[in-house]
This record gives sequence, C-alpha cells and structure tokens, in this order.
Amino acid sequence: MTTVGILGGGQLARMLALSGAPLGLRFLVMDTQPDACAGQFAPLLVGDYRDEAALAEFASKIDVATFDFENVPAESAKWLSERVPVFPNPRALGLIQDRLAEKTLFRDTGIPVPAFADVTSREGLDAAIAQVGMPCILKTRRLGYDGKGQFRIRPGTGEATADAAWAALGAQAQTVGLILEAFVPFERELSVVAVRGRDGEFRTWPLTENWHVDGVLSASLAPARVDDALAATAFDYARRLAGELDYVGVFALELFQHGGDLLANELAPRVHNSGHWSHEGAETSQFQNHLRAVLGRPLGATTMRGHACMLNWIGELPDPDPVLRAAGAHWHDYGKSSRPGRKVGHATVRTDSVTGLAQVLERVGAELGRDAQVAPVIARLREG
Amino acid sequence: MTTVGILGGGQLARMLALSGAPLGLRFLVMDTQPDACAGQFAPLLVGDYRDEAALAEFASKIDVATFDFENVPAESAKWLSERVPVFPNPRALGLIQDRLAEKTLFRDTGIPVPAFADVTSREGLDAAIAQVGMPCILKTRRLGYDGKGQFRIRPGTGEATADAAWAALGAQAQTVGLILEAFVPFERELSVVAVRGRDGEFRTWPLTENWHVDGVLSASLAPARVDDALAATAFDYARRLAGELDYVGVFALELFQHGGDLLANELAPRVHNSGHWSHEGAETSQFQNHLRAVLGRPLGATTMRGHACMLNWIGELPDPDPVLRAAGAHWHDYGKSSRPGRKVGHATVRTDSVTGLAQVLERVGAELGRDAQVAPVIARLREG
Ligand SMILES: Nc1ncnc2c1ncn2[C@@H]1O[C@H](COP(=O)(O)OP(=O)(O)OP(=O)(O)O)[C@@H](O)[C@H]1O
Ligand SMILES: Nc1ncnc2c1ncn2[C@@H]1O[C@H](COP(=O)(O)OP(=O)(O)OP(=O)(O)O)[C@@H](O)[C@H]1O
Repeated sequence: MTTVGILGGGQLARMLALSGAPLGLRFLVMDTQPDACAGQFAPLLVGDYRDEAALAEFASKIDVATFDFENVPAESAKWLSERVPVFPNPRALGLIQDRLAEKTLFRDTGIPVPAFADVTSREGLDAAIAQVGMPCILKTRRLGYDGKGQFRIRPGTGEATADAAWAALGAQAQTVGLILEAFVPFERELSVVAVRGRDGEFRTWPLTENWHVDGVLSASLAPARVDDALAATAFDYARRLAGELDYVGVFALELFQHGGDLLANELAPRVHNSGHWSHEGAETSQFQNHLRAVLGRPLGATTMRGHACMLNWIGELPDPDPVLRAAGAHWHDYGKSSRPGRKVGHATVRTDSVTGLAQVLERVGAELGRDAQVAPVIARLREG
Repeated sequence: MTTVGILGGGQLARMLALSGAPLGLRFLVMDTQPDACAGQFAPLLVGDYRDEAALAEFASKIDVATFDFENVPAESAKWLSERVPVFPNPRALGLIQDRLAEKTLFRDTGIPVPAFADVTSREGLDAAIAQVGMPCILKTRRLGYDGKGQFRIRPGTGEATADAAWAALGAQAQTVGLILEAFVPFERELSVVAVRGRDGEFRTWPLTENWHVDGVLSASLAPARVDDALAATAFDYARRLAGELDYVGVFALELFQHGGDLLANELAPRVHNSGHWSHEGAETSQFQNHLRAVLGRPLGATTMRGHACMLNWIGELPDPDPVLRAAGAHWHDYGKSSRPGRKVGHATVRTDSVTGLAQVLERVGAELGRDAQVAPVIARLREG
C-alpha cells in the first residue's frame, strides 16, 4: 500500500486523489485550511508548512510527497525531502518560485523570454524601464499567482505610472523582490503540459491555447490551432527545461506567441489548469500521469481523443444543467463555497470534430449567459 | 450540498464516489465491514443493515440513498425509503432479489426466459426436472451472486445428480427458496447496461458481450459484435422492464443468446461489472449516470468512444506495468486485499479500432500470462 502525500489541498490535490484511486493509492493531504476541498475525498492533515512537528507527522504517514501548491516554502520541501522522496525536487521548486531565477534559467537554456530586469529600488525601476522598454509589467518575484502582484506600466504617461507602480508594489522589493518584464503584445497564449518520469521519459499533451480574464485563466483549447513546427518548438523548450531541472512529474510551460516567436512566461511546477481538459480529452489525464511519474511507474499515452475546450468557473458556479445536457460536456465542481475570484469548478467539452466543438460551445455559452467566455474560442475554431 | 448515501461499500460504491465527486456531491457509505474499500475515499458508517439505530443515523446524514449491493434486506430499504428518497425503489429491489419473482416478471412482460420452476421439496425437484428438462440448474432464489448457490444437473446420470443437487442446496429450500432453470446452451452471454432517469428518460450503453469463468465475470467486450436487430431487441426488453419497475438509476439486464433468441437471465439493480468499461469507453460512465439519475439531473451521453474490453482481476492483481504501458489500457485497483474468488480490480483496454483492440489484448494477455482470459475476446474480434 502506497500513500502519496500532497502539500496543498485545493482542487488540484482533489483531482489527483480522485484520479490516483484506480492506481490503488492512498493519499494524505496537508493544508493550512480545515475546509480544503481535497479533504472531502482524502484524509487531511491541517497544519502550517513551516511547522516542523506537522511536517514530521506528514512525513511519517506517507511514502512520497508532491505538490498541489507551488508556493510551499522551499525550505519545507527540502526538510521533507530529507525524510521521504519529494517530486518535483525542491531545487527545481525553489528556482521556479522566483521569477528572476526562472527567467534566467529560461535564457540560459536558450529559450527566448521577454526582456526583464531585477528591480530593487525606485531608481532601479527607472533604469529597468529604460532597459526593458515600454509597455512593461512590474511583478513580484515570489508568491504571485493568478495575476496577483502585477502592475502594468503603459507608455506616454511619463513618471506618473512608474510612481504608481512603485506605490503599489515598491514595499515588496525588500520582501519578495520585484522584476520588470517587457509587455508582449502576443497573438496567442499557449501552454505545453508535459510529464517527465523518474527514468527521464518525457511526454507532452497536445499544445493548448489559453485565454485569461483579469490575469486568471478563463478558457483553454486543445489541440491549439497552430502549425506543427511551432508546437515542436514549444515541446522542445519544455523537454530542455525538464532535463535541466531533473524534473519529475507534470508541469506546464506558459508561452506567448508573437509572430513566429515563442517567448516563455513561466513554468508551473504541478498539474495545471490549462491541462484540466486532459481528464476527458486525452487517453491519460495529467493527474494520473503525474502520479505515475512520481511513483516511477510507466507513463500513460497522452494522445488526444478529439478536440476539447475547458471553461473555468470563477467566483461561483453557473447552472450545471446546460452542461450536463450537452453531449460531450463534463462538469467539475470542486466542492468549494463561492467567493469572488476563486476557482470553484470547470467544464470540459470534448467532441470528435472542430465544428461540433464550436456548436456545443455556442449553445452552452448561450444557455449559461456566458457568451463572452466562449466567444474567443469559437472565433479561433472558425478561423479554419 | 447534497450527500448521497450508498448501502454497501465495495468497489461499486468506491467508483460511484470517485465518479460523483465532479458533480459536487458528498457521500456516506454504509457497510458491515470497517475495511470496506469505498471507505478509503468516502466517509464510512459501519453497521448492520438490519440495525435500525445505524440506519437512522445513516438516514439523518444523507439526502438520497442508493445501493452498491443488491442484497440489502428489502425491509431495510423500505424503512429507509420512509425517511429519504431511495433509488432504485424498494419494491423493484425486493422483486429482483427473488429469482422466481424476477423470472415471473420477465415472462409477464413478454420477455423470453429459460424454462423454470419453483422447487420446495425433493419430490418437487423431480417434478421440476420433468417440467423444465435436462440439462438444468438448481439455484437459490435469494442471496446468490457470482455463481454461488448453483448446482448444475446433467442428463444421463439418473437420480444421482438430482440427489447430489438436493444434498448441496436442499437445506436452503426453506430459507432462501430454490428455483430450477433449464440450462441454455448459449452462443453468447450479453448484457444491456441501461439508465432510467426520475423523469422516465431511458438510455442504454452499447450492448456488451460477457465471458464468465466459474460463474464469475472474466471479460466484457463493447460494443458486442452482434447485428443491430438483436441489439434493438435487447434494448427494448430493458426499456420495458425499467418502465414496469418504475426503475430509477443504472441496471444491467443479463441475456443469453441462443440462435436468434435472447433469453433473460437476470436483472442487476445497480451499476454492473459488465458496464465498467464505460468509465473510459463511453462519453459518460455508468457511475456518473447512475448518480445523475438518482439525483434527477440530466443524463449524459452513453455513446462509445471506440471499442473497449474489460478484464476482471479475481483473487489477486496481476503486475500492473504491462497494462500501464499499453496505449489505451487503464488500470483499476479497488484497494482490497487478495482473497480467492474476490473481485480485486479490473483493466479496460480502449482503442479506436477493432484490430487495435485485438493487438493490445494479445500483447497484454501474453505479458501477464493471461492468454486464456483474453483468448475468447480476441477470437470474437477476429471473427470479422
Ligand atoms: N510579459 C507579459 N506580457 C504580456 N502579458 C503578460 C505578461 N506577463 C503576464 N501577462 C498576462 O498576465 C497573465 C498572468 O501572468 P503570470 O502568468 O505571470 O501570472 P501568475 O500570477 O503567475 O499567473 P498563473 O501562475 O496563475 O498563470 C498572463 O497569462 C498574461 O495574460
Ligand atoms: N440457465 C442457465 N443456462 C446456462 N448458463 C447459466 C444459466 N444460469 C446461469 N448460468 C451461468 O452461470 C453464470 C452465473 O449465473 P447467474 O447470473 O444466475 O448467477 P449470479 O450468482 O446471480 O451471478 P451475478 O449476479 O454475479 O451475475 C451465468 O452468467 C452463466 O454463465
């Protein structure tokens, strides 16, 4: 009997546990919140990730550890890794937690990135703007997620916007650090969801296109409607990074497409929202393959079954019935209470044809009053 | 928040809970055994189904009840149904629990059945044999499962086999009752897995062919390689029975094909082993559709994705790696300990083509040393 420990008890841990049950696994989830939604289907240990006693109890009950949440303190991950195997490895996790180290790794691995610069002071910000160019985005180096901790600086507003950006985030220069990035006027946001086994075997799911609203993922489409050469480049970037990091498990590499170029935005060291469609849309889901990788078992096929679109439910769930009624549509309620900005569920529509996908999305969008959410996906599908 | 109570905590309850989680449901499983395998992923209430205090506690914590186990005492189901909605309804359950009432219902509904007769005494057995003909099978009316409580009577052995049958089962004539059935020299065993909603909506998955070893399901193939007219007849039988019983939820109707005829063997009032392939092989699995039906929600599409074969693991699990490695193969470990005759898991192989399915089965069968288990399925697939 193998017990997998998961640090973080949100929807990712929940879906990992549900998908890992058929492998005969047991789970133990650790979270700071007693109502963490993974706790509805797996034993939950409530504790702070920095509390050694809690971590020791966690370690004593598990055979291997992994993450639902990438901002677990790297020292906690390291402490744990001295007691049980931890995947992905704490070095990779620590590196990815810092946008500056992460972008530096991308660049050193020969992967194009938007221009970026470290920012440690108000004067440093001016120097960084001069180096990176306008428009640009000031971001916290650590602990950002879902577009939080970001401030966009638009051209033509003189000193005022730099002052405003500093007023918003300057205080964090000494705590989590700041990075300035060139703003990429991208045509598409894409992600590679990939898995690497303990033995180095590497597989990717088809490239996914993503749409964000207010910095939060709104919709994903797989396979992305891009040419094979672009997808091959994206897969190559993901493979090189996984090798560099000696990464084990699933991760997502987020990319901006600008003209023929792909610029790396960030690597998410865990199963990823843009891979949720794989649950119904691929032969093996990202959740099950993550567990297979972490346990050193053979990886499953990542081939698609038709075409899939994932719609995120943010804040509150819409009426499920239009989704339940639509052929090929699947409902995922995370068992959370409603709260503005919170990811509370998603739906995946899977069909055999592109035309069918557009039709189902159109109907579901209309019935839910979510036309705006499905519109960019439908437009993409109808570009031909 | 809706909590579904499941009476019985085996692999069916476990797969119901895992498949119902994305609907935002909570579960409470009741079982007599503290190590019931569904308890690994859902809260478990340990108690006897006849214990009113335990049943009352169960009822107080759930919104609706259903079954993993069809031999829950019909009185317990009825008692419960006076407190919470119970699906399928206790009348249907009670009727199906008795092979004599069940076969009588089939006959009264115009559905062909093997000749059968009630047996209450040793002399009655002789009379029943004269009526039903040789060969035949003596079965207990109630509480049989996986071929237990059955005795086959072959011709040409005179009184001896009737005596032996009576020695084996006669004592049960006064407790659970006995029925004698003509033995059907069938070409195929088939099952209709079907679902009926609270509003009477009725859907079936494609017809499935099943192979048994020692009375226990060994392999299932979907869709069965039969002509459409035969499948249509089978679906019609299932639809009529569901209507007669005012059935809500998933059930399986087991049929023998003999020449052009279909003879009904039994109806299983729950998700069924011969429908496990639907987890990966159909757009919506039997597990999720059972819950949708029980909750009065819209039913999901039951269309297939390619071709699927399910292999049952009885007694102990084989090495999972050959299955995990095979494209299109999926592993299901029920989290049970090994025990002779126990259903401990299954695997489903899903492919787009019939040829591909035969190839994967051949390889997996050889790697597992289970050639005999896959052989009849491969032979069927290669009949053309
Ligand atoms: N340099 C950039 N140029 C253009 N758009 C950007 C840039 N950086 C971020 N964005 C936009 O903001 C979104 C969120 O940014 P980012 O991925 O850096 O934030 P995050 O908080 O780490 O989000 P998450 O980890 O949830 O994806 C991006 O998906 C993109 O839409
Ligand atoms: N009348 C019959 N003629 C031929 N074979 C039979 C007959 N009855 C039963 N069998 C064989 O025995 C198997 C098990 O029988 P049956 O379905 O009645 O038993 P059970 O104990 O209720 O099994 P389960 O409910 O697990 O399917 C059948 O699938 C079939 O292979």
